[in-house]
Amino acid sequence: MNIRFYNARILTMEEGKDIFLGELWTQDEKILYVGPAKEAGEQTFDREIDCNGNLLMPGFKNAHTHSGMTGLRSLADDLPLSEWLNKQIFPVEAKMTGEDIYHLTKLANLEYLTSGITAIFDMYLTPETIADACVDSGMRCVQVGAVNNFSQSVPLVEEMYEKLNHKHPLLSYELGFHAEYTCSKKLLLDLAALAKEKKAPVYTHNSETASEVAGCRERYGMSPTQFLDSIGMFDYGGGGYHCVYFDPQDMEIFRARHMSVVTNPGSNTKLASGIAPLTEFVKRGINVAIGTDGPASNNCLDMFREMFLATGLAKLKEENAAAMDAMEVLKMATVGGSIAMRLPDTDVLRAGKLADIILIDLHQPNMQPLNNIQKNLVYSGSKSNVKMTMIAGNILYYNGEFVKEDAEKVYAKANEIIARLKA
Amino acid sequence: MNIRFYNARILTMEEGKDIFLGELWTQDEKILYVGPAKEAGEQTFDREIDCNGNLLMPGFKNAHTHSGMTGLRSLADDLPLSEWLNKQIFPVEAKMTGEDIYHLTKLANLEYLTSGITAIFDMYLTPETIADACVDSGMRCVQVGAVNNFSQSVPLVEEMYEKLNHKHPLLSYELGFHAEYTCSKKLLLDLAALAKEKKAPVYTHNSETASEVAGCRERYGMSPTQFLDSIGMFDYGGGGYHCVYFDPQDMEIFRARHMSVVTNPGSNTKLASGIAPLTEFVKRGINVAIGTDGPASNNCLDMFREMFLATGLAKLKEENAAAMDAMEVLKMATVGGSIAMRLPDTDVLRAGKLADIILIDLHQPNMQPLNNIQKNLVYSGSKSNVKMTMIAGNILYYNGEFVKEDAEKVYAKANEIIARLKA
Repeated sequence: MNIRFYNARILTMEEGKDIFLGELWTQDEKILYVGPAKEAGEQTFDREIDCNGNLLMPGFKNAHTHSGMTGLRSLADDLPLSEWLNKQIFPVEAKMTGEDIYHLTKLANLEYLTSGITAIFDMYLTPETIADACVDSGMRCVQVGAVNNFSQSVPLVEEMYEKLNHKHPLLSYELGFHAEYTCSKKLLLDLAALAKEKKAPVYTHNSETASEVAGCRERYGMSPTQFLDSIGMFDYGGGGYHCVYFDPQDMEIFRARHMSVVTNPGSNTKLASGIAPLTEFVKRGINVAIGTDGPASNNCLDMFREMFLATGLAKLKEENAAAMDAMEVLKMATVGGSIAMRLPDTDVLRAGKLADIILIDLHQPNMQPLNNIQKNLVYSGSKSNVKMTMIAGNILYYNGEFVKEDAEKVYAKANEIIARLKA
Repeated sequence: MNIRFYNARILTMEEGKDIFLGELWTQDEKILYVGPAKEAGEQTFDREIDCNGNLLMPGFKNAHTHSGMTGLRSLADDLPLSEWLNKQIFPVEAKMTGEDIYHLTKLANLEYLTSGITAIFDMYLTPETIADACVDSGMRCVQVGAVNNFSQSVPLVEEMYEKLNHKHPLLSYELGFHAEYTCSKKLLLDLAALAKEKKAPVYTHNSETASEVAGCRERYGMSPTQFLDSIGMFDYGGGGYHCVYFDPQDMEIFRARHMSVVTNPGSNTKLASGIAPLTEFVKRGINVAIGTDGPASNNCLDMFREMFLATGLAKLKEENAAAMDAMEVLKMATVGGSIAMRLPDTDVLRAGKLADIILIDLHQPNMQPLNNIQKNLVYSGSKSNVKMTMIAGNILYYNGEFVKEDAEKVYAKANEIIARLKA
């Protein structure tokens, strides 16, 4: 499919480039042209879309999620973290099959599309059925190993690393483990050895809660970041999810190793984990991306909520309304995600890049007047403004309709699965 | 218009009543019937709506806003509070006419409808043009006096109190002033005398920032609440907007006087003001309502954002994921608002009450599966789920369309006004 978008405002997210009026052409999965209005010449299009002055921009990258947990949404809220996890979440998860996770991931994929999310960084139980769900949904998915003492294994991570990095253009896979506190030292050493062998980055939940950091200090005399770095886990970089309780030495490791922080403000708020020191990360030049975390802990998969929280919580933490400019947050949600997820061809709108694009409806009251469109996006934007979501040149969501999926069937399946799992 | 909604899930918000399947009939501006499916008998309808299992519930009450500030949205963000107010907001406001505020209030009213807001508690500069805008939009509007050293006056507040409480069924007016720190003692004493004469409650911005409270203690040796109470301002009750920095004595005054706290978590976050002690208010049985505050300080007029923040920030403040149950927050956003705004006929869905009703689309991925619909509303709900907004029996918003207004004209006018004011 070759598509021409015309009469559009365009925010390429290239450094220093402001919004301009123009058009954008796609050819198959890539962007062919971005610039001022232009004669088509010999170029033919399968579809031409009048954008009516609305805004084209790169899709949002959801840099940390557990898609298959949609089934657990609103199953158990307003509980202390340990009770929530041990009494409510784990027993239900223990009964989940790979097929369940296939269907529940599809439900999450629909929700991502409504929020303009064009790529996800997913960590969950059954990598192969997650991969199938994303290919079937048309969702770009970077998976990450979730090995811990109770599920998956280093050989499985290695197998998935080989398999899912070569299976389909929408898919990739990164080395990873659940968290320091759920892995034995042997497991961590084995994974660090694999990382060195593959010369690959490693990703994990890191310093989400104060008690997690205290536990690691008791076990190893160091913070999680410092301990993991000491065993060579981050010799080829990687990243951390949450990163709420980081000290300057942790930050220095992330900076020196060119690692990414993936912040999850919605989840950290709902689970009362704390506020991550985003201002400090940005000041040090550490790449920051944004993730929703899973739908059991957030509970919604909405990058607009996360963007507002990323700036708002930084302002509260610093007691300074000028902290964490909206522009910085918009960069985290797009370019920062592409860096963290190693998807360099999805970062900005430019000829040759992948056509992972969203169209934002400015003809809604929350985006008016047009004093500053970028600030409107972060401070007053909503998923209701997402008029189109395109991944790899395919329009998957348009004017509130899902193009590829029968949503009612996906909902019915999810309700059927959770009824069985709760029984 | 008599309308029949059938095949609906219904959340009446009556104490202890769970969601049930049934139907709801309206007759003119009121609710005629709420209950299980029922034969129409001799009752005739102008319209019958198949709700397809979606959820009918009372509309949200936005219990604190400055609607006319839509023009200032995203005009000046990421600035310290005093610079924002003195250098950016005040100079533009100084040029605003009553007609400007009429049009800018209409823009806000459109946004309220998209978020399921059926009544607003508005404080701004030109009460009569605000009243006209709300009548023309079909929005239920309680206005409150905004007297301070620079604009309005006690006689004007008295005049508006008489006039706007008798002008139109959608309108009412409460005594109020901007804030202790913007009013001379004489002004406050005059208003307290008026409150006693009218036996009326009084509302004001109260203890929004730490420096505001410190200033009052310096001036009067008491907190704003204690000082205002000491001069008889709250002899007939009333309420406070923000209430971030309250001590136990302030809370005791609010409790004893049956006053309402209107919390504004979005604004308090974006302006880095702090986190209100909601858990403490609820524990004492103080009525709590929720407001968006104005679009210059939030910047969006979305009760879903506010509900998530009301519970989320309480969880962060208490360092307890179990703090501030979602159910409590849903009550604040509906029933709590009705109490604060003295609109007792808008609180729940029951025969005889006003037909201020919204229809929530559950057939969207963020509301699935249906483990717990109320928790879905607070934790994963979005304005994109608002399928219909009805005020006084009139459907004003349906399936993304505005029934009464030409939205494009409202947007164009708002852009024209702000271009002139910025010049």
